[in-house]
Amino acid sequence: MKKWLLFSLLVFLSCISRAQNNDSIVIKKLADEMLRNGQAYDNLRFICKQIGPRLSGSPNAQKAVEAVVRMLKEAGADTVYTQPCMVPHWERGEKETGYIQLANGTKYDLHLCALGNSMGSGTNGVKAAVIEVRDFAELDRLGETVIKGKIVFFNIPMNPTYISTFRAYGESGIGRRSGPAQAAKYGAVGVMVRSLASNIDDWPHTGYTQYNDSFPKIPAVAISTSDAEWLSRELKKKMQVTGFFATHCKMFADAPSFNVIGEIRGTAFPGEIITVGGHLDSWDLAEGAQDDGAGVVQAIEIIRAIKASGIKPRRTIRAVAFMNEESGGRGSAAYLQHAKDFNEKHIFALESDGGGFTPRGFGLEMNDTQKAKVMQWKNLFYPYGVYDLSANGSGSDVGPLKEIGAALAGLYPDSQRYFDLHHAGNDVFESVSKRELLLGAVNMGAFVWLVSEYGL
Amino acid sequence: MKKWLLFSLLVFLSCISRAQNNDSIVIKKLADEMLRNGQAYDNLRFICKQIGPRLSGSPNAQKAVEAVVRMLKEAGADTVYTQPCMVPHWERGEKETGYIQLANGTKYDLHLCALGNSMGSGTNGVKAAVIEVRDFAELDRLGETVIKGKIVFFNIPMNPTYISTFRAYGESGIGRRSGPAQAAKYGAVGVMVRSLASNIDDWPHTGYTQYNDSFPKIPAVAISTSDAEWLSRELKKKMQVTGFFATHCKMFADAPSFNVIGEIRGTAFPGEIITVGGHLDSWDLAEGAQDDGAGVVQAIEIIRAIKASGIKPRRTIRAVAFMNEESGGRGSAAYLQHAKDFNEKHIFALESDGGGFTPRGFGLEMNDTQKAKVMQWKNLFYPYGVYDLSANGSGSDVGPLKEIGAALAGLYPDSQRYFDLHHAGNDVFESVSKRELLLGAVNMGAFVWLVSEYGL
Repeated sequence: MKKWLLFSLLVFLSCISRAQNNDSIVIKKLADEMLRNGQAYDNLRFICKQIGPRLSGSPNAQKAVEAVVRMLKEAGADTVYTQPCMVPHWERGEKETGYIQLANGTKYDLHLCALGNSMGSGTNGVKAAVIEVRDFAELDRLGETVIKGKIVFFNIPMNPTYISTFRAYGESGIGRRSGPAQAAKYGAVGVMVRSLASNIDDWPHTGYTQYNDSFPKIPAVAISTSDAEWLSRELKKKMQVTGFFATHCKMFADAPSFNVIGEIRGTAFPGEIITVGGHLDSWDLAEGAQDDGAGVVQAIEIIRAIKASGIKPRRTIRAVAFMNEESGGRGSAAYLQHAKDFNEKHIFALESDGGGFTPRGFGLEMNDTQKAKVMQWKNLFYPYGVYDLSANGSGSDVGPLKEIGAALAGLYPDSQRYFDLHHAGNDVFESVSKRELLLGAVNMGAFVWLVSEYGL
Repeated sequence: MKKWLLFSLLVFLSCISRAQNNDSIVIKKLADEMLRNGQAYDNLRFICKQIGPRLSGSPNAQKAVEAVVRMLKEAGADTVYTQPCMVPHWERGEKETGYIQLANGTKYDLHLCALGNSMGSGTNGVKAAVIEVRDFAELDRLGETVIKGKIVFFNIPMNPTYISTFRAYGESGIGRRSGPAQAAKYGAVGVMVRSLASNIDDWPHTGYTQYNDSFPKIPAVAISTSDAEWLSRELKKKMQVTGFFATHCKMFADAPSFNVIGEIRGTAFPGEIITVGGHLDSWDLAEGAQDDGAGVVQAIEIIRAIKASGIKPRRTIRAVAFMNEESGGRGSAAYLQHAKDFNEKHIFALESDGGGFTPRGFGLEMNDTQKAKVMQWKNLFYPYGVYDLSANGSGSDVGPLKEIGAALAGLYPDSQRYFDLHHAGNDVFESVSKRELLLGAVNMGAFVWLVSEYGL
């Protein structure tokens, strides 16, 4: 190699290393501020314990909007505002009931809950023979002859050998997401799905189901994994098994709601916007601590810690609490629409919607040049627990911003505990570790600060 | 580069890659077996819920010995046996009480517990003015003039900015470990230490304290972090603060106890021993789920999964449930002594005593050649969550085996939640995630299998 070339290379490498050293100092400042004085955990306690479940369109969701406005102001955001959107307004109504009746007449009460967006059965409920189905291919094979008039029991366990539980969730989730629509096609009168959970216990896990307008909207419930295991064993005995359940849910007219936004205005490029956020709505069965109170309070914490540390970002950083991720994504759509209407320049958006667990990585949804740039920052995240930047992906609230050219990312926390409580009654504040929650915010804060400093 | 050199390099790399590919298949088999059929979680439930706290020398510790013998037999170990050791027998006695009395006469009851190995105060307890001390330098500065006749309050919080909570524990632990001995030197009548916990709550955390035989053995308690914060604020007001506490603990004569050992005999080199284990004893305040029921059931799981998968290790793999890690390390000493007496060849020992949390790394305590060999296996652990092999260290039970030439390692799980419950009443079964526990066992199993296959 020519000497001058080697020399230039050394100068270049030393510049990179000096820059990274300065960067690591700023990031340490941010991290120390969060780990010493972080408010994310207290804010989460408020959202979970003083407010509680925050179903889209509910009075609690509105209370949460007001609380986050206050929190973002207290965090020191330069501007705090709400952004209106109309959201689906579904209500569970009276508590569901259901049982299994065996051939010998014995009745077993089920741990169950209606699926989100599902139609109520009416007070008489549905009562029919139960048939177990393991996948849609099996459903198609059985067809109308067998399925008609029955309750279809989708028993699709999450694959325990996948190390990423999100992968297992993605695969097995098909039963909950479109099982009722598929079963209705063959004349089923109701659907029971095995809860999407990685453990065996008595909690039923709700979640969105999507009907097909060409077929009847049949009522649908999730039963706990322990009930599913038992039911499957009973069905293997080849005796008549009758199921009954009654759900009382109802869809109302769309209701007004809001995203909540807090900004720090960039000093050099205020028109270049970096979004960081999670979703404020939750299902109605739990406090929505991991899903996704965590993501919301992490975003607020980033605003707070940047301000408290006296850091002045060069680009605009915007914390967003999205409304209605669970049942329609209307907040996300409104955010995109507003960005288009006002010709905003969105350069980067980072979502946290995988729980407030100890961080392990970021998913990156951006072009290769951008990925290469982020890879150079890998060593800056490493001391705080993020080491894996290999996944593609971001999150469903920031996802639509791709359309207007934003690079996207998602925080990937450790996923082992998440589906023990996702969409179930045990997704409560107590399941969150303060330090894990804050470490997520530290890594997210580092990422958005780096983008604010260097662009992407 | 000469062509033949390049060629040899390619052949060499392809051999490594083929070997690693075969290794990854065996490890996946082991992992799938654990994640599908693992018994570690059920075994832990038994140890925590059917037995409970297992203080050295207690009847519960003996029950746990018997249970682990059964579990190792059920796991299919070729040989299961116990190894006797005499252990210190300390008892807490009647529940401790204590309060703080302010200058205005108001009394506040404290959340407190006696430190392990500490002397009881007698029923009259100790009552004296309280003085706060932040480190031993301050204690030395104050000296006998100020300290004599007082209760010393060691208020040494764990540093929240350290990402490894073990590092913070190591640093701040000095107050608990030798505070009472140091304070006695200057005539203190009692000691209160701030609990070694990374969160602020009402749980007092016990743990071992070491007296100095040259000075009186003064009674000593841990108070909860929330009490410590409050007490520190009161003391800053510079008004008289009186402390009282009564502890009823007592040291008895050493009691007989056991390590429990289960082996799979190596097919090629049965005389080369690989140890994998954790400790079976716990403090008396909790179920000792994370500390260290987790390590014990992980070791049993490795035996079970190897047998169930039909894997035949070339070297002998020994699961060991060590007795008395918390208060003397007598089980560990007996294990070493036996190894010496029978001239056993110990090539590797791996400990899990950092909780059953999601695994992140292994600490390595071995020579550089051995480290280099282990580094080649890094990619084999990576899919299961272990990515960091940079730490030095293993664990206190396997540590002494260094003397007879064993290479050592320790599982490093994520440390964020550990000190919220370490040595406190909330270290219960419910704090353990089944998948996290099993993933620890997967990585440990992979490590001991690789050593059994290739030596070290």
